[in-house]
Amino acid sequence: MHRTKVKVAEDALDANTTIANANRGDFDRDGVAVVNLMSAPGAGKTSLLEASLRDLDGPRVGVLEGDVQGSMDADRLSAMHIPVVQINTDNGFGGECHLDANMVRTALPDMDLGAIDLLVVENVGNLVCPAEFKIGEDVKAMVTSVTEGEDKPLKYPLMFRSCELVVINKIDLLPHLDFDLDKFLDNVDTVNPGVRTMLISARTGEGVEAFRDWLVGVGERAPARA
Amino acid sequence: MHRTKVKVAEDALDANTTIANANRGDFDRDGVAVVNLMSAPGAGKTSLLEASLRDLDGPRVGVLEGDVQGSMDADRLSAMHIPVVQINTDNGFGGECHLDANMVRTALPDMDLGAIDLLVVENVGNLVCPAEFKIGEDVKAMVTSVTEGEDKPLKYPLMFRSCELVVINKIDLLPHLDFDLDKFLDNVDTVNPGVRTMLISARTGEGVEAFRDWLVGVGERAPARA
Repeated sequence: MHRTKVKVAEDALDANTTIANANRGDFDRDGVAVVNLMSAPGAGKTSLLEASLRDLDGPRVGVLEGDVQGSMDADRLSAMHIPVVQINTDNGFGGECHLDANMVRTALPDMDLGAIDLLVVENVGNLVCPAEFKIGEDVKAMVTSVTEGEDKPLKYPLMFRSCELVVINKIDLLPHLDFDLDKFLDNVDTVNPGVRTMLISARTGEGVEAFRDWLVGVGERAPARA
Repeated sequence: MHRTKVKVAEDALDANTTIANANRGDFDRDGVAVVNLMSAPGAGKTSLLEASLRDLDGPRVGVLEGDVQGSMDADRLSAMHIPVVQINTDNGFGGECHLDANMVRTALPDMDLGAIDLLVVENVGNLVCPAEFKIGEDVKAMVTSVTEGEDKPLKYPLMFRSCELVVINKIDLLPHLDFDLDKFLDNVDTVNPGVRTMLISARTGEGVEAFRDWLVGVGERAPARA
């Protein structure tokens, strides 16, 4: 007897996974490792990239910049002679609040994957939806700022849980804030036990070396070019 | 000759408008004015409410708290004997990144509208989607922080454009930041010409009085109770 095979129709998230896998295939073919870098608005993703890519000795890096509108961050990185492609998400009614796999896919023809080893995708500033959409990345990482308060890991648990690195930026401001760093680290560990954290100031350069080393390490995860 | 009447089916946003209008009807019936208060994560909405509602002499205020998960902000305000209802948006696959009219409607039975004159809806921390969904409010307002950078109005124009008040928080940190306040104010004015701005520090209390007065003014917009 044959059993009827039932195939459930793909929903929107399944479609995203399908496209993310296609992106992954392209990255693998060209031997490119991919970081999905996320944060709240203004936490300092671009400043961290500026500070860490300036003296990067290792992988050749390209950046996909996700923003609702404008290309200010892309322009900052282009000025450093880094290949950058801007993705604007404002085609929706008020702009999409995240990148999905298809937006990344749309941008790939403008990025020469053969000329880079590491692609950093700077997502739209948002602590919710970016964590929900795979884009074909090797690793998700996030930047959080000590100005945002100790409670953020508990309020946005999926974001903190989905990342393998939590970069804590703006530590130069700690003396001027009522921010309990130990409590914050406890909250991070509660939602993502054992996750790696890094204390940095993109402004003063403190701790940036550790992030640079981490980027080099991710670059080394890239498969050999096919 | 009769023309065929074509009625386009409601899309999701039309449905939101329908429900927002129903909320509006309830608010009008009970003579309640409503503020939709928005910001990026950690800009200081709750701290501003704590500082300004403490000595509020005027409208009786209730708060709807929107968060992906948890009730930390609601607990802070409940401790001040303010009627608070928590809305958690985490029923979705990773949590909704905004409040919509139906989420607010679901919470209304738990808020005694007859006992308040002013309802402050503290939206989910996000600079994109909250601006896209009406909830039946009288006025949209936002909190932004000087730690977020001068470029935010240009990167999140719909949010800044939809508000009739832009509260600029954490001005006590200005001496410790590379933040060009004039440039930021120019950027705000570019996307929303003439919008009212307010410089405050919820931490030191500087400027909070102006926000308190503004809240009282919004309370006076409430229609007479039906």
